[in-house]
Amino acid sequence: MQATLGELGEFGLIQELTARLPRTAAVQLGPGDDAAVVAAPDGRVVATTDMLVEGRHFRRDWSTAYDVGRKAAAQNLADIAAMGASPTALLLALAAPAELPVTWAVELMDGIRDECHVAGAAVVGGDVVRAEQVSVTITALGDLGGRAPVTRAGARPGDVVAVTGWLGWSAAGLTVLSRGFRSPRAFVEAHRRPEPPYHAGPAAAALGATAMIDISDGLVADLGHVAAASGVQIDLHSGQFDIPAQMADIGQAVGVDPVQWVLTGGEDHAICAVFPADTVLPARWRVVGDVHKAPAPSDVRVTVDGHPWDTTPGWDHFTS
Amino acid sequence: MQATLGELGEFGLIQELTARLPRTAAVQLGPGDDAAVVAAPDGRVVATTDMLVEGRHFRRDWSTAYDVGRKAAAQNLADIAAMGASPTALLLALAAPAELPVTWAVELMDGIRDECHVAGAAVVGGDVVRAEQVSVTITALGDLGGRAPVTRAGARPGDVVAVTGWLGWSAAGLTVLSRGFRSPRAFVEAHRRPEPPYHAGPAAAALGATAMIDISDGLVADLGHVAAASGVQIDLHSGQFDIPAQMADIGQAVGVDPVQWVLTGGEDHAICAVFPADTVLPARWRVVGDVHKAPAPSDVRVTVDGHPWDTTPGWDHFTS
Repeated sequence: MQATLGELGEFGLIQELTARLPRTAAVQLGPGDDAAVVAAPDGRVVATTDMLVEGRHFRRDWSTAYDVGRKAAAQNLADIAAMGASPTALLLALAAPAELPVTWAVELMDGIRDECHVAGAAVVGGDVVRAEQVSVTITALGDLGGRAPVTRAGARPGDVVAVTGWLGWSAAGLTVLSRGFRSPRAFVEAHRRPEPPYHAGPAAAALGATAMIDISDGLVADLGHVAAASGVQIDLHSGQFDIPAQMADIGQAVGVDPVQWVLTGGEDHAICAVFPADTVLPARWRVVGDVHKAPAPSDVRVTVDGHPWDTTPGWDHFTS
Repeated sequence: MQATLGELGEFGLIQELTARLPRTAAVQLGPGDDAAVVAAPDGRVVATTDMLVEGRHFRRDWSTAYDVGRKAAAQNLADIAAMGASPTALLLALAAPAELPVTWAVELMDGIRDECHVAGAAVVGGDVVRAEQVSVTITALGDLGGRAPVTRAGARPGDVVAVTGWLGWSAAGLTVLSRGFRSPRAFVEAHRRPEPPYHAGPAAAALGATAMIDISDGLVADLGHVAAASGVQIDLHSGQFDIPAQMADIGQAVGVDPVQWVLTGGEDHAICAVFPADTVLPARWRVVGDVHKAPAPSDVRVTVDGHPWDTTPGWDHFTS
């Protein structure tokens, strides 16, 4: 194998990247033509796109190419699941300098492929271009299987707010990494490779979820979008979160209240859904708040234990 | 309006970009949620992704943001059409430095929106991220309307090769621009803003096209993919191309044979399709070659007037 993308060339790279891709039943035409053809048996297709840029969303010295691939795929596939859909396919645009080792690109694709496998999707197409900075742009597609999409706009006063997946683990891992440590391993791993609960999205839709969102920017920030879209107030109950002992230990060591990680840490891609209060939720869901009528427009927001949450609620990609 | 993306912030920018987007009948859920929902009445969805990077695919001093938007959308929508599908929706990932003027991003979106309108599609979602270099990554979706997708692999000996749209105009325009001129205007415009014949894609499929491709890297290069996928030899007849007098004049002025532009110039996004020889083609199609059996593997290629075409056949994004 040639050592760099510049030596291998565009078409060699595409061949290298697509050679080992498996196909699923949904893939009617895979990579290699002008466009791919994917089954959309529902008669609607769910689509989302997200871009990761080196230095902002990942660092090559902190994450392997494989982990960047897992993470890039996960954050898009989680968005599909959070609509109540099952991921079916993914397209990749990779930008990189000619000096990038071919192995980096191949391992990235291995990570994307493996995360797709977890989610039940397949890579069906892509593009590779030369750029100064490495970036990975992914578009994911999904199928609703006859269910109505669960948006951010359906939360109603009286509903309960529940989460499934991990919360604050990635943020704790990032804190550890940014201080030069590489353990505790579980948290560092969670930062490098999130594990979104893909199946919980369609399951929540089937359980009658009224609103749903993927937690990518932090629970308070993301639920803020639900509150705004639904015109409601959402109150989180800090005592109902599960703070693992090890997370509490890290918090103590670095002087951070772990509740901060749970409420504002993004990138774990937990799924947060709003349900009618009488919904019988499977054990993997944890009720962490409830929905209230907002008496005034200023009440359309997220509170924690009845009070405004006044630290920075999330991540703005241009101002931070 | 704030002057730069950094001043406006991520969420302000998203609001600015999505505020003026129209919706089409196919858009069941537009921008603003975890993912969009688009009608896929055929039960299959056609999907493609392409990325444009500043300095490689466009220059801000040569093209307006509006034209970059038109071009970025066009090259993706043309890929959908070249499968025989009708474009339905488009997703955008915009990467830019914080210093980028907000007006540039807004005008880019205007261009994407207007090109979508021409093609019958709508912008349904996207992502904005901060990066050192401006890049525009687009994913386009389309619907086959009950037709089989027309791939690169179906060309058979005896078929004829036909094109519709513009060929070599963008390349002639680029030559003019790169020598510091801004006219003839028609060619400079063609380079800045291609006009793919979107409707010709589904029409060709309905006429029984056996293979089809969007001409983005040059006719010889792109037909090379058809020859390879179909296992045939394709011979182009240089005398059958329409070389406008003004293109011949530019060629003479700059010392380039305009046939070179027609055979190797990309980015016009003409559509090239292969048809059974007895197909009655509408006037907008021009037959420019035919398909032959390849006696040996080395004959699986494109020839021009029976001879190998021995100058650089196209564009490789990493080696050139």
